[in-house]
Amino acid sequence: MAKGVLLVISGFSGAGKGTLVKRLTEKYDEYALSVSMTTRNPREGEQEGISYFFVSREQFEQTIAENGLIEFAQYCGNYYGTPRAYVEQQLEAGRNVILEIEIQGATNIKKLFPESCLLFVTTPTAEILESRLKGRGTETDEVIAKRLARASEEAQGMDMYDYIVINDDLETCVDEVHALVDAARREPVRMKSFIEDMQNQLMGYSKGE
Amino acid sequence: MAKGVLLVISGFSGAGKGTLVKRLTEKYDEYALSVSMTTRNPREGEQEGISYFFVSREQFEQTIAENGLIEFAQYCGNYYGTPRAYVEQQLEAGRNVILEIEIQGATNIKKLFPESCLLFVTTPTAEILESRLKGRGTETDEVIAKRLARASEEAQGMDMYDYIVINDDLETCVDEVHALVDAARREPVRMKSFIEDMQNQLMGYSKGE
Repeated sequence: MAKGVLLVISGFSGAGKGTLVKRLTEKYDEYALSVSMTTRNPREGEQEGISYFFVSREQFEQTIAENGLIEFAQYCGNYYGTPRAYVEQQLEAGRNVILEIEIQGATNIKKLFPESCLLFVTTPTAEILESRLKGRGTETDEVIAKRLARASEEAQGMDMYDYIVINDDLETCVDEVHALVDAARREPVRMKSFIEDMQNQLMGYSKGE
Repeated sequence: MAKGVLLVISGFSGAGKGTLVKRLTEKYDEYALSVSMTTRNPREGEQEGISYFFVSREQFEQTIAENGLIEFAQYCGNYYGTPRAYVEQQLEAGRNVILEIEIQGATNIKKLFPESCLLFVTTPTAEILESRLKGRGTETDEVIAKRLARASEEAQGMDMYDYIVINDDLETCVDEVHALVDAARREPVRMKSFIEDMQNQLMGYSKGE
């Protein structure tokens, strides 16, 4: 069986990453969502093993020491990281593993795993981004302004992603992501063993075997 | 309207590039096949403007001087090149223009047009390639051996293509290529103006406009 694709999903706050990932895993069996490990405290409504694995600082550092994370970072005084075992086990089983992480983490993943596929999710326009953030009705103008300022910084890094995904209609977008993962499987970086096999087989002919 | 994608198709002799391209242009309206210009003599059955544009050496060099070719090369004492006007006009009209060229030409095109999309067409195995070449029944064992030796060289360059296309079943393969072109449109290199627009719009917000 072909290995799954390590799928990194980033994007603007308000672009609908969360909903997109949720729908993708519901609609297609071959996706598995990686759950991050963190030392920060659970917020209202967050569930252990679903939102995050909540651990102590000691447990987190122990996991680092055991090489149990594929990447980790500190943010606002807390550790966040991606447990290795689940990711590797799901990829081996042929499932595409989704990491929903921000741009810095995405860059790190790409360095460590050149065969990872990086998607950046955006709204069709900045105006739509603003109106989606406002439409939630749960955030103050100050928070919205901060998110838009953050988005402006993040937009500078869109170039380093493999694909840009415009989230206009959710179902269309889910199917588009699925098609992009299929396409990504046809890139040479993810077909190394096929290419090597072909080169070796043809080598035989050119030697007149 | 979005510009078309400049689609470069290479692959092993016997992998079915010609049939694939023919079927792709028949099945989907949005593809246009670029016709090369050459100074070599027409062969039996070749048609002016369909197989090639057949011109004199003087006419070819005049076209080079007028910057009328996007690339050209000499091969066995004859010139071969891609006329610029048709390619640009079709791309502007939103059609994907197919260039069926070998690996050296493909590399040149990629340098000149980083937004071009390079596909490499292969059979599932070298054995199938051999049996397809033999199955044509029109070529001597010596010619077949030469083609396989050539394929072995070409296989060393598969890595530099954007996508590897395995031509097993023709119709599946045609649809796969169509999906790959759709995916290619989502790569940042082909979304430069979208990315710039988004960056500029968001810049406005971060300045508090």
